[in-house]
Amino acid sequence: MAKPWATFGIDLHLEPAAGGLRRGLTDALREAVRTGRLAPGTRLPSSRSLAADLGIARNTVADAYADLVAEGWLSARQGSGTRVAERGVGAGAVGGVGAGAVGGAGVAAGTAAVGGVGVGVDVADVLAGPGSRPGVPGTSPSPEPVHRRARGLPPPPAPRPLYNLIPGTPDLASFPRAEWLKAARRALTTAPYQALDYGDPRGRVELRTALAHYLARARGVRADPDRIVVCAGFSHGLRLLGALLRARGARTVAVESYGLDVHWNLLAAAGLRTTPLPFDERGTDPGRLTDEDAVLLTPAHQFPVGGTLHRDRRAAVVDWARRTGGLVVEDDYDGEFRYDRQPVGALQGLDPDHVVYAGTASKSLAPGLRLGWLVVPPHLMGEVLRAKGGIDACGSLDQLTLAEFLTSGAYDRHVRAARLRYRRRRDALVAELARRAPKVRATGIAAGLHVVLRLPPGTEQQALRAAAWHGLAVHGLHRFRHPEAGVEQDDALVVGYGTPPDHAWSGALEALCAALPE
Amino acid sequence: MAKPWATFGIDLHLEPAAGGLRRGLTDALREAVRTGRLAPGTRLPSSRSLAADLGIARNTVADAYADLVAEGWLSARQGSGTRVAERGVGAGAVGGVGAGAVGGAGVAAGTAAVGGVGVGVDVADVLAGPGSRPGVPGTSPSPEPVHRRARGLPPPPAPRPLYNLIPGTPDLASFPRAEWLKAARRALTTAPYQALDYGDPRGRVELRTALAHYLARARGVRADPDRIVVCAGFSHGLRLLGALLRARGARTVAVESYGLDVHWNLLAAAGLRTTPLPFDERGTDPGRLTDEDAVLLTPAHQFPVGGTLHRDRRAAVVDWARRTGGLVVEDDYDGEFRYDRQPVGALQGLDPDHVVYAGTASKSLAPGLRLGWLVVPPHLMGEVLRAKGGIDACGSLDQLTLAEFLTSGAYDRHVRAARLRYRRRRDALVAELARRAPKVRATGIAAGLHVVLRLPPGTEQQALRAAAWHGLAVHGLHRFRHPEAGVEQDDALVVGYGTPPDHAWSGALEALCAALPE
Repeated sequence: MAKPWATFGIDLHLEPAAGGLRRGLTDALREAVRTGRLAPGTRLPSSRSLAADLGIARNTVADAYADLVAEGWLSARQGSGTRVAERGVGAGAVGGVGAGAVGGAGVAAGTAAVGGVGVGVDVADVLAGPGSRPGVPGTSPSPEPVHRRARGLPPPPAPRPLYNLIPGTPDLASFPRAEWLKAARRALTTAPYQALDYGDPRGRVELRTALAHYLARARGVRADPDRIVVCAGFSHGLRLLGALLRARGARTVAVESYGLDVHWNLLAAAGLRTTPLPFDERGTDPGRLTDEDAVLLTPAHQFPVGGTLHRDRRAAVVDWARRTGGLVVEDDYDGEFRYDRQPVGALQGLDPDHVVYAGTASKSLAPGLRLGWLVVPPHLMGEVLRAKGGIDACGSLDQLTLAEFLTSGAYDRHVRAARLRYRRRRDALVAELARRAPKVRATGIAAGLHVVLRLPPGTEQQALRAAAWHGLAVHGLHRFRHPEAGVEQDDALVVGYGTPPDHAWSGALEALCAALPE
Repeated sequence: MAKPWATFGIDLHLEPAAGGLRRGLTDALREAVRTGRLAPGTRLPSSRSLAADLGIARNTVADAYADLVAEGWLSARQGSGTRVAERGVGAGAVGGVGAGAVGGAGVAAGTAAVGGVGVGVDVADVLAGPGSRPGVPGTSPSPEPVHRRARGLPPPPAPRPLYNLIPGTPDLASFPRAEWLKAARRALTTAPYQALDYGDPRGRVELRTALAHYLARARGVRADPDRIVVCAGFSHGLRLLGALLRARGARTVAVESYGLDVHWNLLAAAGLRTTPLPFDERGTDPGRLTDEDAVLLTPAHQFPVGGTLHRDRRAAVVDWARRTGGLVVEDDYDGEFRYDRQPVGALQGLDPDHVVYAGTASKSLAPGLRLGWLVVPPHLMGEVLRAKGGIDACGSLDQLTLAEFLTSGAYDRHVRAARLRYRRRRDALVAELARRAPKVRATGIAAGLHVVLRLPPGTEQQALRAAAWHGLAVHGLHRFRHPEAGVEQDDALVVGYGTPPDHAWSGALEALCAALPE
């Protein structure tokens, strides 16, 4: 079907097509709903208002709305205007936008839904999608478009994607709610009332004790409850370490060439410069470390590229720390999830006096818990607690619940079940790619909740545009590259296959394959 | 009974008494257990070790231990040594040391109990109590004491008081556990899975919406879910505001003459100087505000002195803020608890564009929840969220549970029940004081969880020593005085009658009366 509505930017181009304006508007709106660019429940502007924005007759809009209500794409009710119809399974598949989306679409949408502001949506902007659809003829801009800049409506929420493969979040629909509530009941029923008081700035001793046992057993960490500091996720822990380093006069932290900009920004906010280290097939190269004050690494599973730090390099990192007094920060964000071989123990086990181990419940359970932990060299405990403000930052009930969850064995059961589920997804992803996108090579597949899909040179932006067109939220590898990294950039997508709920997984995989070069 | 063991400092003075060394040691140990200076469950050093420390025969110690086991003060079991016996009601009465004790005795004791370190206790140090007992003859240091410095044992935990009347903590034993668990179940059962993701940096919209309704209804706050920022208690909120002020170039924050040093220290850590404002019977005087960048106030119930800010002064504070662009920070820490008249509305209601309202669940529910909230002027929202690091700091499950607790009416029911309970305690306290300590005047009794007991001039230190001797943790008013405050200091105790659990309340009141001048 020829598309009479070519759209790009925030301008909306109108072109009289064979079916006339009404047919063109109807098709464009239907497509926006079908692909999820207009989310279920979204309230459309009044026909008068949209007509004014588009510079067309009000009746044309009203007729297009009526057609789509008849077809079931929209719903209209007296007094509440015209909305995008709720769907069955499809509606539930629309996830949040994940780790990177703080302050973005998810926030705005949530506010609109509950806070009661911004109930309108700028359809003209939503129709103006992520660019002309690649590889589909007839969608290039018309040489004589009718330009109408949308105006007068409140700033629109960004369109919500239908599927989410952004890495950084586990499958939240599989959070073990019943088991967690059971642990919460046991924990709160048996806790002494003093557990509800202002607490130890290190966190609840029950949780620190449970973590010390678990981390020693599962990750080879040399832990002691007295040296564990519970914090509100990895970001909070990194803020504490940034403040500590700055207070010691540190200036520079070496980081990996690829990583998360939120981490670099946290260090920058503490007044610390980040300098990227080069890497090769044995992982990040610590041979380039010189007079940096610290180094931030993901030794078990480089994020996002995916390798494991070679044992020689692990030793070299520790040697550097001993020689220079530098601090190693080990981000063990997904140490639980390894599929094809034995887990790699924590680097911290090599030298607990020079390595801060940082773990989190965000990948194994859920980021919403806001629970992470640092295992801190003894001589730094006082400074970490001063940076923390001398007070426990995390709710004691969640801490007691996680302690109970760990000691009762529920955590191990949950991790084993999740590992199996994620491994099946990974296998399905790899098999489907081999069949449908043989030019794409999946790397970094041995562990974690994401893979890197290597693309033919020069095709990353095109793949991202295609993904957006298919309603798929996904990031390119370039997004994770440190601005000063010298490494030549490869074209790739970073695919978080752990993110979607089970019922949306096959749809997400289908959208991904459709977006990849064949 | 004459006491052969006079103790002070960490030195232990031995004096051959009528009953001999064995009798003296037995009496001193019994007294230490009775008053709670040796807590139930505490493991005593071996008789060999204590004998060496005290420079007496091992048999003398073994005999004293045996006497006290026979009397039921100690318990001895093969393989686990001698411990202070667990008591019935009495043991449960030993609370934590409250808000000010972070990192102090409570922490060390907790670690010993669960972490398995520091199982020993230096009895010689524990026997060396808070000073010679005032007003009891025969306890002054002997002119020829046998000095023995305790040595060789790990650093001891400070002695735990038997009763706790330090303000700042509600009756944690009355935390509504069953209702909270019910709300947690409802919240977690109905939450969308996206609620477990990284969240809105302002906090969960469900909680912000519930708070907006509650604060408008109960506290007269002009609130909007979009302008509420959930934070990990008041301290966290104050840290955010301190960072915001500093980032704006602020230098000075005016504070009240009496307050909490932890708050002044938080502001100092942000690089802000605090300057105290004078006060009189109409409360803190804003007439002295000049070019300060902000002012931190407790308008509804001055902490700790107890008055309400007069309406003329409320207006004057807002006038100052409008005239100078200064920021007013309203700490509404116990706004729910007012007994003899209608609650005083929040100052924020006068001018939501110049006042940040700060509330907390720490007094109405429990500090361990680590949940507080700021209502922020619109033009400051971006800066507050930047200071917060662009991420939600609090667990979403606790936030959803509190939202459910508020909207279901459970919060109102709990506050009403707690208000009645606290009011009864306050009435009992006032009546008992009138009967037993007529020289003492209770002030600031109309609201909150604490009163100020005005003492005859020059008797505060004496009363504090007496309280310690009676196993009572309580603070003097001088502790809350800003170091630069010009106000003449009155002798007084600040008594947190909300703190003890119900079963310890009458014992705490008895200990308090015993410590006061008759």
